[in-house]
Amino acid sequence: MQLATLQLTTLLTTIEIAATIAFAMSGLIEATRRKMDIVGVFSVTFVSAFAGGTVRDILIERRPFFWVENTEYIWLVIALVLAAPLLLRSRELRVTDKVMEVADALGLGLFTISGVSLALVAGMPPIVAVLLGSITAVFGGVTRDVLCNEIPKVYRDHQPYTLCTLIGGVIFLGLHQLSVSPHLSSLVGICSISGLRLLAVTYQWQIPSWPRNS
Amino acid sequence: MQLATLQLTTLLTTIEIAATIAFAMSGLIEATRRKMDIVGVFSVTFVSAFAGGTVRDILIERRPFFWVENTEYIWLVIALVLAAPLLLRSRELRVTDKVMEVADALGLGLFTISGVSLALVAGMPPIVAVLLGSITAVFGGVTRDVLCNEIPKVYRDHQPYTLCTLIGGVIFLGLHQLSVSPHLSSLVGICSISGLRLLAVTYQWQIPSWPRNS
Amino acid sequence: MQLATLQLTTLLTTIEIAATIAFAMSGLIEATRRKMDIVGVFSVTFVSAFAGGTVRDILIERRPFFWVENTEYIWLVIALVLAAPLLLRSRELRVTDKVMEVADALGLGLFTISGVSLALVAGMPPIVAVLLGSITAVFGGVTRDVLCNEIPKVYRDHQPYTLCTLIGGVIFLGLHQLSVSPHLSSLVGICSISGLRLLAVTYQWQIPSWPRNS
Repeated sequence: MQLATLQLTTLLTTIEIAATIAFAMSGLIEATRRKMDIVGVFSVTFVSAFAGGTVRDILIERRPFFWVENTEYIWLVIALVLAAPLLLRSRELRVTDKVMEVADALGLGLFTISGVSLALVAGMPPIVAVLLGSITAVFGGVTRDVLCNEIPKVYRDHQPYTLCTLIGGVIFLGLHQLSVSPHLSSLVGICSISGLRLLAVTYQWQIPSWPRNS
Repeated sequence: MQLATLQLTTLLTTIEIAATIAFAMSGLIEATRRKMDIVGVFSVTFVSAFAGGTVRDILIERRPFFWVENTEYIWLVIALVLAAPLLLRSRELRVTDKVMEVADALGLGLFTISGVSLALVAGMPPIVAVLLGSITAVFGGVTRDVLCNEIPKVYRDHQPYTLCTLIGGVIFLGLHQLSVSPHLSSLVGICSISGLRLLAVTYQWQIPSWPRNS
Repeated sequence: MQLATLQLTTLLTTIEIAATIAFAMSGLIEATRRKMDIVGVFSVTFVSAFAGGTVRDILIERRPFFWVENTEYIWLVIALVLAAPLLLRSRELRVTDKVMEVADALGLGLFTISGVSLALVAGMPPIVAVLLGSITAVFGGVTRDVLCNEIPKVYRDHQPYTLCTLIGGVIFLGLHQLSVSPHLSSLVGICSISGLRLLAVTYQWQIPSWPRNS
């Protein structure tokens, strides 16, 4: 169990880096499309990358925050912002809604599982761990949209978004309780969330109002 | 004093449950009226029920959060959301603005006094305890309105809302310092806040601008 | 080093009081211009004065919050709000945009340096200290604008605002690392931030979009 926890912790670092880049890029793209100045672009990128994880760290009382403990994350975001003219120039990397949606879906899966795992390591009850996973994943995107003066995507449409994180969180939790290895259960959890989200966007799945005939 | 503190703590649990249901219902009603999907309804209900208490717990450093310590609260909110088709179907329970206002006024009184009491137990100075009571009570409703993409009621109108919580908080504090039993002072505090709020809504009391002739 | 830290701490109290008054006044002026009632005016004034410092205290885990430890701050804000009819009546103190901008610029400088210093005392890495300084300074104003139902000034225009805090934070940090006395480096830091901001407003400096030709 001790070993499993250690393994889980190591795995989480990898997940955290990938999720940070994915969400930072989604913020960077959104901000540059709105013709913000360099500080605005940095703020939105920073918040998109770190807001979800920071709220998670506050809720599970994990200190120092991951971006304080590993200042490389901050420099990474600064580098991404400074490299924006190169990153966004080439025609192949043309910023389409599709690119945004893929980055967003990836971050969604990665952050959810990082949130659920860290909450479990911190000794949270299962239901709280699943909710913390969703909050970790959704909060960055919500804040990004608020800073860009848009009603958060997640509240605007009837598309599955938070729902994907809840489903994936429950799948991960189930595998974890069946003693499946952390690596495998994380991979399955992340893929189901990101996959579900991309399917939902592609096929424009809709969730009905609740209650249905209200 | 030790005993009074213990009594106070026991009483607070009862208050907390009732306040959680009242605020959850206000969020549930508001969300379903806006034709949200089930996740949206759950999110708004969850935030309405727990945001105020969570901010209170962060400010007085009370961990774990009340909804983490007692996961029954989370299941309660889930049950309320799942039962929404039944709860909101019957004609007698027809969701009118009046019903909303009563639920809101009740939660307002309950959460204020729970906030003031917990702050006192945590050793906060009186003025801070009163302010924390108001923040506890008002923050859930403000967040609910923000999520429903409405300017918070509390900032929009010139009706007494936060003012009721401040008056009731001061009354409760006064009784507490006069060594009145926690049960009685809580009851008086809650009734004065909820009562004042309902009177204010019914008779459409208005608070003038400040400064008056600005 | 111990002495330097002590000196720094003493100096910070002075800075904190001045910054609190400056930001409270900016909130008070903004709220009264919007014909809010007395509770609304108090809320906006309170949040303008304390939101930045509270977020800073949460991020560096400094408890109790400065306004809980020193309740004089709360009474000061209450006194300012109650004195508003006198403060805002006289023709000389006529509330112009200029007055608002000066109060805001002053609070900007003071809160940034208080944030950077406290973060350094709390053992944060330099890059985090600079960012915390900016967050401390900008968060109060952002929240004030949100409560007044305005898109935060800082996101709306292309004027240097957060940029001033970043530049001043780096200057302060540089002087600090060159072992310049805390008093002098604080003074230089504050003056460069407030000065830059006022110059930026006066000459309507603009920061271009990033990337420039996007």
